[in-house]
Amino acid sequence: MRILVTGAAGFLGSHLCDRLLAEGHAVVGMDNFLTGDPQNLAHLAGHPRFSFIRHDVTQFIFVPGKVDAVMHFASPASPNRFSPYGYPNLPIQTLKVGAMGTHNTLGVAKAHGARFLMASTSEVYGDPEVHPQHEGYWGKVNPIGERSVYDEAKRYAEAMTMAYHRYHGVDTHIVRIFNTYGPRMRLDDGRVIPNFIKQALQGKPLTVYGNGNQTRSFCYVDDLIEGIYRLLLSDEHEPVNIGNPDEFTILQLAETVNRILGNEAGIVFQEEARDRDDPQRRCPDITRARERLQWEPRVSLEDGLALTIEDFRKRLQDQ
Amino acid sequence: MRILVTGAAGFLGSHLCDRLLAEGHAVVGMDNFLTGDPQNLAHLAGHPRFSFIRHDVTQFIFVPGKVDAVMHFASPASPNRFSPYGYPNLPIQTLKVGAMGTHNTLGVAKAHGARFLMASTSEVYGDPEVHPQHEGYWGKVNPIGERSVYDEAKRYAEAMTMAYHRYHGVDTHIVRIFNTYGPRMRLDDGRVIPNFIKQALQGKPLTVYGNGNQTRSFCYVDDLIEGIYRLLLSDEHEPVNIGNPDEFTILQLAETVNRILGNEAGIVFQEEARDRDDPQRRCPDITRARERLQWEPRVSLEDGLALTIEDFRKRLQDQ
Repeated sequence: MRILVTGAAGFLGSHLCDRLLAEGHAVVGMDNFLTGDPQNLAHLAGHPRFSFIRHDVTQFIFVPGKVDAVMHFASPASPNRFSPYGYPNLPIQTLKVGAMGTHNTLGVAKAHGARFLMASTSEVYGDPEVHPQHEGYWGKVNPIGERSVYDEAKRYAEAMTMAYHRYHGVDTHIVRIFNTYGPRMRLDDGRVIPNFIKQALQGKPLTVYGNGNQTRSFCYVDDLIEGIYRLLLSDEHEPVNIGNPDEFTILQLAETVNRILGNEAGIVFQEEARDRDDPQRRCPDITRARERLQWEPRVSLEDGLALTIEDFRKRLQDQ
Repeated sequence: MRILVTGAAGFLGSHLCDRLLAEGHAVVGMDNFLTGDPQNLAHLAGHPRFSFIRHDVTQFIFVPGKVDAVMHFASPASPNRFSPYGYPNLPIQTLKVGAMGTHNTLGVAKAHGARFLMASTSEVYGDPEVHPQHEGYWGKVNPIGERSVYDEAKRYAEAMTMAYHRYHGVDTHIVRIFNTYGPRMRLDDGRVIPNFIKQALQGKPLTVYGNGNQTRSFCYVDDLIEGIYRLLLSDEHEPVNIGNPDEFTILQLAETVNRILGNEAGIVFQEEARDRDDPQRRCPDITRARERLQWEPRVSLEDGLALTIEDFRKRLQDQ
């Protein structure tokens, strides 16, 4: 297949390009580098089946030649308000890529009779009252909160995607992505795993906000991409959660990072500077992915962190 | 003020134009007549302070001259799947006017330093677990249901509006409109009040689906417009419910219509052809409107229905 990947220079987008190329597909990467990093695609320079178009997908998209699949991964994705790449600092852009970007990429899929896969998020569940979250749960999202620029944009993108499926017959797929980590995460992403690794590599104590008992589930990026690739090839039109259901507390995560790196500086606790709408707990119910895609995660947190740390170490040395 | 009203040829939009003109403002009406009806504006032809631009607001908007306020009322609004004007039959258009239309109208407000008011809806509460619904309730909406083309578009529009307020400092206002009725509702709108009035005027029995015990609150259009006008002039940036909190069962409504019209054909009950996501009950908590706008509805259901029936009778005769 010849596959258009938007957000190709992002953390997930670039891993997706690698996997698609490894499967023998041709890939047209697209990115405007708002939050994507050209460095993530540097290794693909000169690849015979990879091409790239620098473009903002909120503007009309033209791709020369035939497209067999469109995978819409463009969007700011970090909730961190202290990061320049966090969507709180890119609110209008985040809203636009969810609506106009999804509309334009669906337009490409419709025009080419191509498969379409949209990168949605566990954020559509908001601050959930149901644990773990299954795909039938409608979510609890504040439509006017500061996080709504991301959450509502993604919910809208799902509604638009389903509308193109129902009314235009486009072969659409929706993946709801839970917390994912791995090589190429931004060092200054602001999320917990990059923060911990950076601190541990510098021999500093890891900063845990609150008591560290809030849980997260972390999926290693290769596992995620495997699930997404299966979804693309499937006949599944309903949203599918892809994530790792193993829950760890932030404290366990910090201890694991320190153990792998032999960091003896320990942990410091800081008062919780928590957003009002920040969910305390989120964990995927992956029954649907298991049953319909025969997928489940394989990489342990320990192994995944080791691979991620290796990448971070290399990049910090290069800086 | 010189006020841009999108959806000016719609039921609410046209009443809004009348009120603004009566207050001495100049009005620029805008509509693409997708669901709006030119007949609703026919009486304004030649009005010295009314002008009209036929335009689809999902496309870039240019308004010659100064604009002091923008009121974004363009959208399909009927959930009826059997009506050509119902949003189930205009899914992509409904999604687009909520996102691109809101973005473009906010752009006009930002460029002109104008006030902005967005017509949101009680549908943002979805199938609510809280009664009556107050503005702090986050709602229960199925992001991928058939109604999501409207619900999620409006939630997105609220998120976009708040983002323009927070990040661009636009003087925005959001009204969450509950069920409203009155003259100029489409005869073939498909909603319950037009259906009942049409049947009663023809001396037919009124069709009630299910047992008729599901409740609705109905606000007469003049009351609604009064609340919206106050909101436009206020400093209130948070969403405000405007609706009538008096709850009536569908059965009570049918009996009232029959009584006013002296229709002795009675009522027939039909099996409920209810949408899975169709809310059983919706009723506004109007504490915020009372406290911050000193607004409450004044027109009784009996009086409002009489005025509406008068208008329907006239229009049915003209057909």
